[in-house]
Amino acid sequence: MLESQFATGRDVRLACRSGSLTGQTAGLARGFAQANLVILPQALAMDFLLFCQRNPKPCPLLAVTEPGQVRPGEIAPDADLRTDLPQYRVWRNGELVDEPTDITRYWQDDFVSFLIGCSFTFEDALLRAGVPVRHIELQRNVPMYRTNVPCVPAGVFHGPLVVSMRPMKPADVVRAVQITSRFPRVHGAPIHIGLPEQIGISDLSRPDFGEAVPVYEDELPVFWACGVTPQSAIMAAKPPLVITHSPGCMFVTDGRDEQLAGG
Amino acid sequence: MLESQFATGRDVRLACRSGSLTGQTAGLARGFAQANLVILPQALAMDFLLFCQRNPKPCPLLAVTEPGQVRPGEIAPDADLRTDLPQYRVWRNGELVDEPTDITRYWQDDFVSFLIGCSFTFEDALLRAGVPVRHIELQRNVPMYRTNVPCVPAGVFHGPLVVSMRPMKPADVVRAVQITSRFPRVHGAPIHIGLPEQIGISDLSRPDFGEAVPVYEDELPVFWACGVTPQSAIMAAKPPLVITHSPGCMFVTDGRDEQLAGG
Repeated sequence: MLESQFATGRDVRLACRSGSLTGQTAGLARGFAQANLVILPQALAMDFLLFCQRNPKPCPLLAVTEPGQVRPGEIAPDADLRTDLPQYRVWRNGELVDEPTDITRYWQDDFVSFLIGCSFTFEDALLRAGVPVRHIELQRNVPMYRTNVPCVPAGVFHGPLVVSMRPMKPADVVRAVQITSRFPRVHGAPIHIGLPEQIGISDLSRPDFGEAVPVYEDELPVFWACGVTPQSAIMAAKPPLVITHSPGCMFVTDGRDEQLAGG
Repeated sequence: MLESQFATGRDVRLACRSGSLTGQTAGLARGFAQANLVILPQALAMDFLLFCQRNPKPCPLLAVTEPGQVRPGEIAPDADLRTDLPQYRVWRNGELVDEPTDITRYWQDDFVSFLIGCSFTFEDALLRAGVPVRHIELQRNVPMYRTNVPCVPAGVFHGPLVVSMRPMKPADVVRAVQITSRFPRVHGAPIHIGLPEQIGISDLSRPDFGEAVPVYEDELPVFWACGVTPQSAIMAAKPPLVITHSPGCMFVTDGRDEQLAGG
């Protein structure tokens, strides 16, 4: 049902709320934009908001709630951020302590929620343009790497830029730059092409997150700023409490992927 | 004077017409679009027009005249194509026979003139965006290479795609794709990045036309379709008579570079 071409973001959220969907959201409600979720106590929210403002390529903000609000606003007016994702991760002092499918019991009146654009949006645009995406073909998680490029720090948050990598033939690299440039709110254009050692990546076969994919001789590795960057910065800061989505279990919005295009 | 920021395309053309300018036009009348010129007898014009239509990346047509017309139309209404370029080349049966500064004495009533977009337009856009262009820095002609990519043939015209090469750092490659994609009427986005052997180029230090430039370790070679492609196809066809501009001695139009941008 949720894979059907008629499924909406709301259908996915209601399935999460009822407990019938507790797994990954990739491929569900095609065409509806999905988002990363970060929930922090208000005391850390200003620092994190500033971190996102200063590092817009890895941290493109789609929405930020008022303290205590469970509804994310016009991106999905009837959503409840406590129940409408398949699975969450609860972190205390940088350690994973729970993976619930509902965070109602953890909710605090000072929680501020951040919804951050997700590369699913531009991957769908690449596929529609006939540009193959290796990790999707192989049904793997995208390979991600810590770089030697530092983010601009903000308060307690700092750390390296994390990138995702997609190998492509040169003509497809050109198309991929054109297509992803249209989507600045989901990481936008690549930050690097072709020379991984220059950004501190010594071995493409050993990603820091996700799974490796082969890069063939007639291909270049292409690197995009990755939404794992803010998560990585948060974990390094070891805040007393933070809640995120579980990997791959995204928040599905009412917005269309194409509405996130810049031109 | 013609290097001044106030010089126009018309100023350059009048200097050619009076005989005071007989050299290269690079850097003159900044901001005005320059064009390649090909003049063919009408009997070959349909084949050549079709060749351009089928190969728009190397042969982006800005204007085509009616037979015998010396005025190129709205691109430069008061221009005279017989006198308004610094220098011409006259070819008979594929051999260079003359390099006059005026072709009035060669003019035929059946001549059809083709004005083809020139990469000067996008190079200026690159420089304005802070993307360095190596051959300009070194004051050399851009290096150009015959590839193993065949053009789509049309009538007597056929041959390989010729490309120009500009080496760039990876982040600049991304910017260069974005910037040149805006200029489809002057070759547009690159056709290849990073792996020259894949398009039949074995040694970057030995270009087929122009001059070599160094490619440093932290750079990728980036390849654009080149306006030498149609000239090369014409020479291979050895038509009885064809007239072109001399290399670097372009036709300067009344159009602004930015008017050639697609978006």
